[in-house]
Amino acid sequence: MLYRGQDNINYANRGMALEKDINITNEYYIESDIAYIYKKPTPVKIVKVDYKHMKINEAYYKEPSTLDYNGIYKGKYIEFDAKETNSKTSFPYINIHKHQYEHIKNIIRHGGIAFLIVRFNILNRDYILMGEDLIDFVNNSSRKSIPISYFESNGYLLKMGYRPRLDYIKVIDSIIKN
Amino acid sequence: MLYRGQDNINYANRGMALEKDINITNEYYIESDIAYIYKKPTPVKIVKVDYKHMKINEAYYKEPSTLDYNGIYKGKYIEFDAKETNSKTSFPYINIHKHQYEHIKNIIRHGGIAFLIVRFNILNRDYILMGEDLIDFVNNSSRKSIPISYFESNGYLLKMGYRPRLDYIKVIDSIIKN
Repeated sequence: MLYRGQDNINYANRGMALEKDINITNEYYIESDIAYIYKKPTPVKIVKVDYKHMKINEAYYKEPSTLDYNGIYKGKYIEFDAKETNSKTSFPYINIHKHQYEHIKNIIRHGGIAFLIVRFNILNRDYILMGEDLIDFVNNSSRKSIPISYFESNGYLLKMGYRPRLDYIKVIDSIIKN
Repeated sequence: MLYRGQDNINYANRGMALEKDINITNEYYIESDIAYIYKKPTPVKIVKVDYKHMKINEAYYKEPSTLDYNGIYKGKYIEFDAKETNSKTSFPYINIHKHQYEHIKNIIRHGGIAFLIVRFNILNRDYILMGEDLIDFVNNSSRKSIPISYFESNGYLLKMGYRPRLDYIKVIDSIIKN
C-alpha cells in the first residue's frame, strides 16, 4: 500500500502524499516529453536575508491566489490544484481561497484548462474535478462541501499506476478530445 | 525619469526595476481581463519553521529551472524571463541557466510562447527576444553574449507607457498574428 501521509501534523505535511505522487508523475511527463507541468514554489514573503551566506532568516507563508501547478500540454495552458480530504462523504471546499476560485474562472474564460485533483484518503480514491463542474456546483448549491456522489457522477476517477504514477494527462486528453 | 534600480547591492534587488514594471503591467492585464500572467514565487528551500507562528526561520534560494513569469493569453501558454544588463554593447546570457535554456526549447516544441525581456539599463531600452531567436543565436555563435545589434535586428523594442507600463502583450500579439 502506498504511503498516504500523516494528517494533522503540520502545515508543511498537509496533502504531502498526493503532492509527491503528482510530482513524480510530472517528472515522468517531462522525461517522456509529454507535458511540461511544474509545481509553483511555495509563495513566501522574505523579510530577512543574510546575503553573505545567501541564507533567509525570516520569511512567512503567503496565501496563494493561483493554483499550485501549471504548465503546457499540446499547446494548451493547464493549471490545477491538488487537495486531500479525510472525509468519506464529501470534499469541503473551504480550503479553496476566493482568489483561486476567481482565477479558475479566468483561466477557463481565456481558453485554458483548470481543474482539481481531489484525494479521498480513507476511500483510497483520486478524482479529477474540472473547473467547469466546480463552478457549476458552487453556483447551484448552498453547501460548503461537495458530496462524493457529485464526484462519482461529474468527476473522473484516476487510477494509481507505476509509470506514470497518476496519469491525469490521459484523462485530460480524453476530455479535450470530446 | 524612471527609477532603474541600484546595481550590485544585493541579490534581492537585482533586476528589481524591470520586475516592478512587469508586475504593474501584469496587474493591468488582469484588471482589464487581457491576460493572466503571474510571477512565480522565488524558489526557496525551507529548512526550519516555527509552526506556532507560521514563521520560516531558515531557508535558502534555489536555482530556478523554469522562467520567472508564466500564464495564459488568448488560450496560448506564455512563459518568459526578465533580465537587466548594465552593458551598452551586449547582453551576457551567462545568467540564463542551462535548465532554463532547455525549458525554453521544450515550451516552443510544445506550442507555447517563450521569450526574454531584456533591459539595457544605461541605454534605456527594453527588448523582447523570442525564444526561437535566442536559440538561433546560441546555435550559430560561440559568443557568450548577444550583441546589441542582434537585438536591433531580431528583437522587438518595447515602449514605456503609462497604462500599461510595458505593453509586451501588444508585441506578442502582433508576432502571433504574423
